[in-house]
Amino acid sequence: MLDELKKIVFDGNIELVRRNLVIYTWGNVSGIDKESGLFAIKPSGVDYDTMKFDDMVVLDLEGNKKEGKYKPSSDTATHIELYKAFPEIGAVVHTHSSYAASWAQARKDIKAFGTTHADYFYGDIPCARALTKEEIESDYEKNTGLVIIETLKERKINPMDIPGIILSSHGPFAWGKDVHNAVHNAVVLEEVAKMAYRTIQINPDITRVEQYLLDKHYFRKHGKNSYYGQN
Amino acid sequence: MLDELKKIVFDGNIELVRRNLVIYTWGNVSGIDKESGLFAIKPSGVDYDTMKFDDMVVLDLEGNKKEGKYKPSSDTATHIELYKAFPEIGAVVHTHSSYAASWAQARKDIKAFGTTHADYFYGDIPCARALTKEEIESDYEKNTGLVIIETLKERKINPMDIPGIILSSHGPFAWGKDVHNAVHNAVVLEEVAKMAYRTIQINPDITRVEQYLLDKHYFRKHGKNSYYGQN
Amino acid sequence: MLDELKKIVFDGNIELVRRNLVIYTWGNVSGIDKESGLFAIKPSGVDYDTMKFDDMVVLDLEGNKKEGKYKPSSDTATHIELYKAFPEIGAVVHTHSSYAASWAQARKDIKAFGTTHADYFYGDIPCARALTKEEIESDYEKNTGLVIIETLKERKINPMDIPGIILSSHGPFAWGKDVHNAVHNAVVLEEVAKMAYRTIQINPDITRVEQYLLDKHYFRKHGKNSYYGQN
Amino acid sequence: MLDELKKIVFDGNIELVRRNLVIYTWGNVSGIDKESGLFAIKPSGVDYDTMKFDDMVVLDLEGNKKEGKYKPSSDTATHIELYKAFPEIGAVVHTHSSYAASWAQARKDIKAFGTTHADYFYGDIPCARALTKEEIESDYEKNTGLVIIETLKERKINPMDIPGIILSSHGPFAWGKDVHNAVHNAVVLEEVAKMAYRTIQINPDITRVEQYLLDKHYFRKHGKNSYYGQN
Repeated sequence: MLDELKKIVFDGNIELVRRNLVIYTWGNVSGIDKESGLFAIKPSGVDYDTMKFDDMVVLDLEGNKKEGKYKPSSDTATHIELYKAFPEIGAVVHTHSSYAASWAQARKDIKAFGTTHADYFYGDIPCARALTKEEIESDYEKNTGLVIIETLKERKINPMDIPGIILSSHGPFAWGKDVHNAVHNAVVLEEVAKMAYRTIQINPDITRVEQYLLDKHYFRKHGKNSYYGQN
Repeated sequence: MLDELKKIVFDGNIELVRRNLVIYTWGNVSGIDKESGLFAIKPSGVDYDTMKFDDMVVLDLEGNKKEGKYKPSSDTATHIELYKAFPEIGAVVHTHSSYAASWAQARKDIKAFGTTHADYFYGDIPCARALTKEEIESDYEKNTGLVIIETLKERKINPMDIPGIILSSHGPFAWGKDVHNAVHNAVVLEEVAKMAYRTIQINPDITRVEQYLLDKHYFRKHGKNSYYGQN
Repeated sequence: MLDELKKIVFDGNIELVRRNLVIYTWGNVSGIDKESGLFAIKPSGVDYDTMKFDDMVVLDLEGNKKEGKYKPSSDTATHIELYKAFPEIGAVVHTHSSYAASWAQARKDIKAFGTTHADYFYGDIPCARALTKEEIESDYEKNTGLVIIETLKERKINPMDIPGIILSSHGPFAWGKDVHNAVHNAVVLEEVAKMAYRTIQINPDITRVEQYLLDKHYFRKHGKNSYYGQN
Repeated sequence: MLDELKKIVFDGNIELVRRNLVIYTWGNVSGIDKESGLFAIKPSGVDYDTMKFDDMVVLDLEGNKKEGKYKPSSDTATHIELYKAFPEIGAVVHTHSSYAASWAQARKDIKAFGTTHADYFYGDIPCARALTKEEIESDYEKNTGLVIIETLKERKINPMDIPGIILSSHGPFAWGKDVHNAVHNAVVLEEVAKMAYRTIQINPDITRVEQYLLDKHYFRKHGKNSYYGQN
């Protein structure tokens, strides 16, 4: 069971490289096994070029290491908070993908400007507030998770409807029902960030799409009345 | 006959990936056989990486499936309206290519700023108006086709002279006399959208080219006095 | 002799594809044999993917075809004017490379903003004026060459010191002592156009570099006191 | 010993090509052997495509050639000044990477806008002042090094804390404890320059990150309390 999970999480990490979302060690993917409550995550600071599936680290949601010779990703505490707050999440992805990170550095929400966005994100992708000095100086990575949760709750966002966020002066987190889906959402987040960047350069006065277009495209692909794809 | 059509339509879909116009399932190509009135189109939501030529779906212009194990593209009704309105069209291409989609999201025409544009598009590439709430909530994909047709008619555009359009908050459609030509036009539309984006960043006051330059370049390549190429 | 010339010109054309300066048929390279006064050029509208070295067309400077089964590039008359006006030119390159074409569409000179530019172009890369209606409607391609020559003469530019130009609403021409050098200059022109684009986005008030920096970098690589490289 | 050094320096130069930081001859890497005081550097004007490890040139810090059939990089005197001023530096990298060079041409510091920057550069990446006419006309490359040193000293920057700089109207230099580290820093400098470019396009009013965020990210990866990675 753990070998299967480590294999899936390893493949998700490698997919980030293949999709040009990370260079060097700039990202991490984790995936959780709901039954056992254990999750696998990329080891800290290990280069993607030489990493092997068995280098993945397995932990429980208290952060105790269960398997693996390496220290887990330094962002592990952020992943844990997300798994604890949102049981429907099966995987978490963090990258510094360039357009999404630029929006994060600019401290602006990525507005829903079109149907590419609406097909995956049911509303603006929020830019979470900057952490305070206190939040940064103690338990930084845990507090990063708490600020994500705070943002989603304050804006009344169901995390499965908007499966990603950007963090002020940092970069994006995405998630999904499983590793495949979470990595897919991270790729889409970057594409949508790129289009939104160009959109406001062409027309700085453009506003978000009408709610009914957002509804149409999102529910064409999600929920019980969806008709996109083969199901 | 249908196998040949499915092969050509499949190749056109794959060419979109090879030219970096689509990722995942973000696009679709169809091609019509004029004699039988049947057309082949990409199946809905099937990934380009695993798709085979025999996965193409064949339909008639009333939307009845004639061959294929999958549901056709969710945008099929848009393709049908274009084939019904413009018998000279032999193929239709839809993508979310990044620069063209950004112009669409910005809700601005792509102006004819130079000869690259004029070689293929005899005037500005129009941005069709946004659909109304009513048009979106019933028969969305059919109404998308109708708004394309309305835009071309209102602007008195012959679809073979400007073989592409962008849809407000959505992305581009392109077409042509056959699949090869329609995909070519989709690639050029993206290149022209990219150049136009950079052009207005360098000089926001720039206006469209003079009519006589547009005439020269368009008719150098099209119509009875053309002298570009080997014919 | 002609086979050797055709081979070199063919390689130069293919190099444009390899360096991502052209797609489809959007460019052409010619090279001249000074002794015989004959030059080889890409055939018109032939796709780079299928083109063979023997498809190159050989002409004299009156435009008479000497060898080749195809019609020469539709831009042949522009090449001829440049060879006739500037005997020191051994090869001419035309592309629609994206950043240079965007500057051309914006109708702005590419200013000398730094040492990358100064290493190859001893001053601003001029944007030639738009052709008049009359110049476009008769002998368009020949008049394109004449406007390039007019621009260089008016600005007192030695074509070997600034081996490239952009044409209003069109794109770049570059040249050099031989095919290898002319293609190299076309690649550099695109890189310099890209950097200049980003430079003015970061700082719209930036001005061209000081003359003494331009002198230093240009003459470090060119002329009798050059000390760059192994000569 | 020298063969080992030449091999490492050669690999560093090739890595610049692999990471798309240089085309043609637009960059150079050197590495020093602290014990002997000898360093190896790329030869001047030799193309990356044909260069071999044995083409590297070995010199002492007075600029006397010890090994190699070629003339060393024309920027050798800049490298020498950096090695003499900062004994902790083990390697120096110069490129014309596109985004960093654009910031250099715009003559603006690359501000610390986020954690990607803070993970490697403990503060803004300075843009050194333009050289005077006198500095350019005599001992240009040596004076380039002196201006780098002057900038770091004036701003009280420890070169190991901010391992890179951009030079007005020119491009970036980066350095590090060894060749691998210096090339890594040059790649990151370009990525950070790209993100900063996009950040100010999205939000021109954005300011540098808070000092405590800079502290957190920099010291998470550097110094005695670091906890990133496996050490």
